[in-house]
Amino acid sequence: MKELEERIAAEGQVLPGDILKVGSFLNQQIDTALLGQIGREVVRLYEGEPITKILTIEASGIPMAAAAGMFMGVPVVFAKKHRTSNVDGSVYSTVVHSFTHNEDYNVVVSRDYLTADDHVLIADDFLANGHALRGLIHLCEKAGASVAGVVIAIEKCFTGAGDALRAEGLRIDALAPIESMSSEEIVFRS
Amino acid sequence: MKELEERIAAEGQVLPGDILKVGSFLNQQIDTALLGQIGREVVRLYEGEPITKILTIEASGIPMAAAAGMFMGVPVVFAKKHRTSNVDGSVYSTVVHSFTHNEDYNVVVSRDYLTADDHVLIADDFLANGHALRGLIHLCEKAGASVAGVVIAIEKCFTGAGDALRAEGLRIDALAPIESMSSEEIVFRS
Repeated sequence: MKELEERIAAEGQVLPGDILKVGSFLNQQIDTALLGQIGREVVRLYEGEPITKILTIEASGIPMAAAAGMFMGVPVVFAKKHRTSNVDGSVYSTVVHSFTHNEDYNVVVSRDYLTADDHVLIADDFLANGHALRGLIHLCEKAGASVAGVVIAIEKCFTGAGDALRAEGLRIDALAPIESMSSEEIVFRS
Repeated sequence: MKELEERIAAEGQVLPGDILKVGSFLNQQIDTALLGQIGREVVRLYEGEPITKILTIEASGIPMAAAAGMFMGVPVVFAKKHRTSNVDGSVYSTVVHSFTHNEDYNVVVSRDYLTADDHVLIADDFLANGHALRGLIHLCEKAGASVAGVVIAIEKCFTGAGDALRAEGLRIDALAPIESMSSEEIVFRS
């Protein structure tokens, strides 16, 4: 998506450790005009697919999921991150490892809001190592829901995680797929 | 706001400890049609006010802020909750006490995204004891930003916290102000 790639090229900051900061427009301060464009692009990509629900994970995936859900006319569900393994029978739960914080956490979603009748579009702001995404897919499997596909604002393609999931048959659409990046240059996959 | 009050009356569950569960449509699963109505109502309430930014706090205030920001055409900024007091000079920070978890946490926002030029509308899903809201106001004061007002989806008026802030001169608009609630009945302020 041209508008998003241009914005990343103009304002994104690449920091040591393959960190890309996009806080000025995507995940701390949100440019809501761009957010609207992202929401409409998601609708365009999944036109004709009988999506029943958009699933995301708190917190920074929420704006994109909310925008897409409003334009698509479907509910948004957000999975929550819990530090404790103290989860009860009312939720589906899976363990995800965070490299950033070097700890495991539980990702949970209420059984009431994800069911075998759902055809789910997963949305998130970043795809890097794919751990959070695999967690969300696992929750859908536990619920018996089908996954229509995954929409990601920014994919770090150079990790290989997204392509590994594609090779397993998963549809992943990255609005801004980054092939390589350094403090000098960000190269998008064409 | 009639649509929101009707939905709370129909689907809200009052649990012991003055807990109101609205996860089926507001803060776990989000009815995006209702979210759009909420966003438009916020625009209507603040028509003519020169709002430059909507400020909320992660995570459940984000959908409402994103919807209102899109319709209003202004950026959304979200303050983050940190457990550690290890914050650097790039952020404004304030301490908020959580009764739910009985611990203090830091609420932080980047200095880049909240400035003395801003006329801020604060948005959140719940107003109960007002601690998180006072934290957000404190961040605006630190940044030298003016606060146009506060929009809350659901106010628990019976705590008195919202009225105390109103008595201090703050504009607070609650879309669904709850005067009293029990497992039998939810009474809205008229």
